[in-house]
Amino acid sequence: MTVALPDAAALDAADPLAPLRERFLPTDAVAYLDGNSLGRPLGASAERLRDAVEREWAGRLIRGWDDGWLDLPLAIGDDLGRVVLGAAPGQVVVGDSTSVLLYKLIRAGLALAAGRDEIVLSRDDFPTDRYVLEGIAAETGATLRWVEGDPAPDAVAALLGERTALVVLSHVGYRSGALVDAASVTALARAAGALTLWDLSHSAGVVPVDLDGWGADLAVGCGYKYLNGGPGAPAFAYVAARHLGLFRQPIQGWLGSASPFEMGQGYRPAEGIRRVLSGTPPILGMQALRPAIALIEEAGMPAIRAKSAALTTLAIELADALLPDALLATPRDPARRGGHITLDQPGFERIMPALWARGVIPDFRRPSGIRLGLSPLSTSFDEVEVGIRAIAEELGAR
Amino acid sequence: MTVALPDAAALDAADPLAPLRERFLPTDAVAYLDGNSLGRPLGASAERLRDAVEREWAGRLIRGWDDGWLDLPLAIGDDLGRVVLGAAPGQVVVGDSTSVLLYKLIRAGLALAAGRDEIVLSRDDFPTDRYVLEGIAAETGATLRWVEGDPAPDAVAALLGERTALVVLSHVGYRSGALVDAASVTALARAAGALTLWDLSHSAGVVPVDLDGWGADLAVGCGYKYLNGGPGAPAFAYVAARHLGLFRQPIQGWLGSASPFEMGQGYRPAEGIRRVLSGTPPILGMQALRPAIALIEEAGMPAIRAKSAALTTLAIELADALLPDALLATPRDPARRGGHITLDQPGFERIMPALWARGVIPDFRRPSGIRLGLSPLSTSFDEVEVGIRAIAEELGAR
Repeated sequence: MTVALPDAAALDAADPLAPLRERFLPTDAVAYLDGNSLGRPLGASAERLRDAVEREWAGRLIRGWDDGWLDLPLAIGDDLGRVVLGAAPGQVVVGDSTSVLLYKLIRAGLALAAGRDEIVLSRDDFPTDRYVLEGIAAETGATLRWVEGDPAPDAVAALLGERTALVVLSHVGYRSGALVDAASVTALARAAGALTLWDLSHSAGVVPVDLDGWGADLAVGCGYKYLNGGPGAPAFAYVAARHLGLFRQPIQGWLGSASPFEMGQGYRPAEGIRRVLSGTPPILGMQALRPAIALIEEAGMPAIRAKSAALTTLAIELADALLPDALLATPRDPARRGGHITLDQPGFERIMPALWARGVIPDFRRPSGIRLGLSPLSTSFDEVEVGIRAIAEELGAR
Repeated sequence: MTVALPDAAALDAADPLAPLRERFLPTDAVAYLDGNSLGRPLGASAERLRDAVEREWAGRLIRGWDDGWLDLPLAIGDDLGRVVLGAAPGQVVVGDSTSVLLYKLIRAGLALAAGRDEIVLSRDDFPTDRYVLEGIAAETGATLRWVEGDPAPDAVAALLGERTALVVLSHVGYRSGALVDAASVTALARAAGALTLWDLSHSAGVVPVDLDGWGADLAVGCGYKYLNGGPGAPAFAYVAARHLGLFRQPIQGWLGSASPFEMGQGYRPAEGIRRVLSGTPPILGMQALRPAIALIEEAGMPAIRAKSAALTTLAIELADALLPDALLATPRDPARRGGHITLDQPGFERIMPALWARGVIPDFRRPSGIRLGLSPLSTSFDEVEVGIRAIAEELGAR
């Protein structure tokens, strides 16, 4: 029986978001399938950065802080909250790296959950989440309770108890692409008296997020994946408004203090989300985020999610047909996955240099996974087909 | 008796570094006297950033990490070490903010000095240094021992003892501009069995620094003052090679681990200075540093220091003549000060808006100080005269 392959060209022709691909700067890659590791830059972001250097920094110099830089981490945070995270204003701030924000928010979360000393996490979570938590456990004496396999609500519930302080999980698994039922997990944790901290690095900008609606307590996420902020862009942190009054973080830097320019004795935390800040905000590093968030708003998260599901569906259908020996590590139900899929096959590591050499750029994840990160605003259906055909050809050529 | 005012035009005409001022992008400020708060951008830095966005990020995408991004924090660190800090390769890394690096290095320093629990610091130090230390003292139980007034060697020595773990001081005071005798303080601390951590924010790039020669243990500093890295540029950290083997920092992020792309279980710190890293390095944010360090190397630190002393001397002579009621908060001996001076007079806060409105941009430091930060590579002697004449005029106009 011959199964007709899906028609990538027809999908591109019918794609309402296709015209937005023109907004991105050109690349020499013929199929860029790693948008979940590093999103592509918008032309508008390059313009924004140029203006920030030539007009704001060069021209205004120190006056730039009064012209808007001081509030930029909160202003971009509010944009992110409204467009991407389902968070009302005053709860999101941009700065530091995801690792540093994880550290600050986990330490703060442990303090908010005083008297409780267990943290639930996943064995399959991204290394930085696990490593940061292991360090905090060693320094505070907290006990780590590990979910093995996907952090399904039942698996998390089995570890919750009266000692549980925090549940720290990724919304979308960095390798499997599995989407966690964050609303249910948050509700279960809350019922057990525990707080949740969501790592949204692999979901923000590609999967609908509803932090306020879930009743989440804390969240962090990465600025350089589906938010297209550039390599090493600042991360973001969310602290639910109800916790801000008691929120205290360990790195008491001057720009998280109540009146930094008084330069007085004794740290007092700033009111509101600003108290998550520590040092001087990375103004140049956060410039690319704003045009990218504006493009997400223009496209709308529902359309982005719909195209994301169609892209991953196409990838799975093509893999089924062209890579019969590959094992799909990602849920087949599009409602249960994020914006990337991972395929496992022993030969994959060997063919990566050849793929990259021909401009087909997926990511490799040990021990044997090719991960395809399909950023909906910049990726065409044709690129998915070009990429999977190239993988099949390189496998066959060996 | 009439004292002849110094001749700024003659000083500019004789200045061997004057041609380098052309390398900076234009500003509408007529006298920019705040280079120690935010250094001006080089044209070459704007070019570097444009290339990093359009060729590296847009063109190479994720391949940029293999092309050099992964080593960039260490490569720029080595440049800084050679040109600015007196540090042999492999001991300096760029990343995070000064506040975050202070936190990481102080925590690591306390661990290295196991069994000792006192930290010496200065009441006059920059707020973030004091605030971060107060937070660490609260969480670790360490005791803070405060130097009142300038941290002269004798004043520090009086607080050293067998319980002293760390001495944390700024090399140049952010307000007074006083230069601390770092070699002597380091030797005294070492003799007492304590480690030193130098904050070089107000000295790196303007005052000769010799970390290896001093026998310093740890150091941090800011990238956006005399290093011209841009608003909120990443900071730098120094860890003396002899400590790297036992150095453990609290924020165990993946990019400070031994093999981040293995994504394995259990954090093991990377070999060498890389273990100071936590999250993904801020690649865009650090681009401006490299051309600025290259310009410092071209000019040479001795010539920069000589011009710095001449600029602050001119400022003091003009203030003596034109601002007779102002009190100099900075040492008169140029060998005992850094690159900025502070003048105190009750009327100063009132005239700041008028000064800024005419494009004369000093900084104000409470309660009554005008601080003049004279970045040698970008500041002319004429600007100093224009600025101090403007201050005198605005005072007289009230």
